Amino acid sequence: MTTREDAIALDAADPLASYRDRFALPDDLNYLDGNSLGALPRATSEWLAQVVQREWGERLIRSWNEGWHELPVRVGDLIGRYVLGAGAGQVALADSTTVNFYKLLGAALDARPGRSVIVSDPLNFPTDRYVVEGIARSRDLTVLPLAADPVLGVTPADVEAVVGPDTAVVTLSQVDYRSGALADLHEITRIAHAAGALVLWDLCHSAGAVPIDLDAAGVDLAVGCTYKYLNGGPGAPAFLYVASRLQDELTPPIWGWFGQADQFAMGPSFTPVAGIRRFLSGTPSILAGSAVEAGIELFAEAGIDRIRAKSVDLTSLAVSLYDEHLAALGFTLVTPRDAAARGGHVSVSHPEAYRICKALIELEDTVPDFREPDGLRLGFSPLTTRFVDVWDGIDSIRRIVEEKLYERVSSSRSAVT
Amino acid sequence: MTTREDAIALDAADPLASYRDRFALPDDLNYLDGNSLGALPRATSEWLAQVVQREWGERLIRSWNEGWHELPVRVGDLIGRYVLGAGAGQVALADSTTVNFYKLLGAALDARPGRSVIVSDPLNFPTDRYVVEGIARSRDLTVLPLAADPVLGVTPADVEAVVGPDTAVVTLSQVDYRSGALADLHEITRIAHAAGALVLWDLCHSAGAVPIDLDAAGVDLAVGCTYKYLNGGPGAPAFLYVASRLQDELTPPIWGWFGQADQFAMGPSFTPVAGIRRFLSGTPSILAGSAVEAGIELFAEAGIDRIRAKSVDLTSLAVSLYDEHLAALGFTLVTPRDAAARGGHVSVSHPEAYRICKALIELEDTVPDFREPDGLRLGFSPLTTRFVDVWDGIDSIRRIVEEKLYERVSSSRSAVT
Repeated sequence: MTTREDAIALDAADPLASYRDRFALPDDLNYLDGNSLGALPRATSEWLAQVVQREWGERLIRSWNEGWHELPVRVGDLIGRYVLGAGAGQVALADSTTVNFYKLLGAALDARPGRSVIVSDPLNFPTDRYVVEGIARSRDLTVLPLAADPVLGVTPADVEAVVGPDTAVVTLSQVDYRSGALADLHEITRIAHAAGALVLWDLCHSAGAVPIDLDAAGVDLAVGCTYKYLNGGPGAPAFLYVASRLQDELTPPIWGWFGQADQFAMGPSFTPVAGIRRFLSGTPSILAGSAVEAGIELFAEAGIDRIRAKSVDLTSLAVSLYDEHLAALGFTLVTPRDAAARGGHVSVSHPEAYRICKALIELEDTVPDFREPDGLRLGFSPLTTRFVDVWDGIDSIRRIVEEKLYERVSSSRSAVT
Repeated sequence: MTTREDAIALDAADPLASYRDRFALPDDLNYLDGNSLGALPRATSEWLAQVVQREWGERLIRSWNEGWHELPVRVGDLIGRYVLGAGAGQVALADSTTVNFYKLLGAALDARPGRSVIVSDPLNFPTDRYVVEGIARSRDLTVLPLAADPVLGVTPADVEAVVGPDTAVVTLSQVDYRSGALADLHEITRIAHAAGALVLWDLCHSAGAVPIDLDAAGVDLAVGCTYKYLNGGPGAPAFLYVASRLQDELTPPIWGWFGQADQFAMGPSFTPVAGIRRFLSGTPSILAGSAVEAGIELFAEAGIDRIRAKSVDLTSLAVSLYDEHLAALGFTLVTPRDAAARGGHVSVSHPEAYRICKALIELEDTVPDFREPDGLRLGFSPLTTRFVDVWDGIDSIRRIVEEKLYERVSSSRSAVT
């Protein structure tokens, strides 16, 4: 059996242990939802206050010439370098994941005229599926669903089985938002390319949790969010990646003034600017973008390799503790057992998952998240989550189920996330 | 002649004079660009710190159930009530003006199948024109340009002359971003409707400067920004308005999960939720949206009628001072002389406008803005601009031109805005 002392010993040996103090987490909270909303870096408060008081309050409009106009690309480059394995000039901070996904999917389809199929995963995150559905409807395209295992996720063979000469775009999440399954980005990209299709990866659940090497894998397009493992704040702007070789060939469907060549000439017609800026749309939020910039600095300092190593240890501990305590209590593990095949979160299912989740929050000050219909997701953010938090979290779940404490909370669906 | 003492006397009698102290404007700056980026309300710093430290830092993901999820509609309702003359449930804070414009134009065109014309103003703000151009290209529609006077703006007769049975949508700005001309929103909406078209108004330069009554005018759709007269911060989220009677009939082209019925059921297909939320797309930035909420409160307290009354007095003083000092120095007034026919800013043109603008900033600590090719825009924000600021600003312009001080600055275009 793995004891609480074992977990404490792992924390004592953790080279990233000191990072927790760089975040403003409440002492009495066991926060296991950093994969949904990352914690607040202490430096972000000060950074934002500076942006608000100095850049907005004192410099006002002049700040657009003093750094704001470059923010989408400056922060994009930081994300590219430290998170995505992308060289400069290929990543921009912009809009939401949804809007970026819409823009890049539209641009990709325009670049593959005559091909009528979008290959997608029916288990993908809803916003991806809905955008695919809407675009397919408006363009009279076919969405070809993959038949992937819900726990193990999409394999190269699953993709190989459906791509063909009609495939315009293959779009998938690198890490599944429910199971945490980690797809083989390199091999799937290769298979899509062999069929002449473009790939559009959603990196929301992988960015900041696993090493990513978009350039080396020859990825075409990607989007992702910054409010999970990158700690950019609630609803923080998303990122988009367009490989340099494709930038001049693609034009997003939204022709906005931030994507215009010689923007402030305000000329009569839209001429997309060269480079990644053409994928911007309207005026970006500087307050929201600055919080992302602040969060990335901390991430860059810690380094993705150390983060991934700890992430693997955290999820491995969770799986061991699941085997020891939860398997016998009606839970099912719905995350791959192979650490190399999963991202930074672990999901279990249980018929009473909703009430268990609520009881964890209300009775145990432990915050996981619930996913319909019966999923309990435990997200481990290596910069803030301690091994003892994993131990305590699983122990709380065990207690709630063994003692049926979940019967004390209502089963009415009030929770938003 | 109007003396500086006259301007000081106007300030002494100004019922809104005390509001200036509620903003964090530097003492030595004459800021005449509140129509481009509004000043920082002092309360916003504190409000944001609270959102960051308490809502994000301490409550974390739980805050989505404690107010964040409702923020787009809660702030939208405030904007509707205090700025737009719109009843509850018709306005949402979302995305950028560009993205909102794209969403509503796409939805409007879908609702007018068989009509192939978009009526637009070739002098409209670039992002509107570019989005119109892109959508027209992708749908094989015709953009019919109005022939409007560049100073007096679009008249009902201009619209009457071009709308017809093929017109799907008429889209215009209520206040012209260069001339400041104020269009007759009521009458133009009536004319568009008589032709069976929908109207989509861009309110970026009118929201917070002039009274707007979208419901009474029977407007269909509108978008606008919150970072100008509403002081929501750089690149703050924009708003969109969809009249209640149209909401169930329209679906935006971007099918995002924040517009989904029963969002967290994460169902297999997109079913737009009833009401204004269906026009949301992805996860909204809470930091950016909270700054808008903070700014609106101050605006609501002052009231649009008092704001408009002062705005008329400010622009009238500027026009008088133009006549007294600038008309003889090679300037041309490019804003309507009739106060009822203009918004909150006054533009003049001059062959040396670019260097004059730069000299104002560098030599006089006075910040207007420049618009290609030869426009100098003076924006008066009634909550922060004093009458003496108008006087000093015009006096600075006079001195720079009379003494050719603009020759001391470079004419190379470094400025972003």
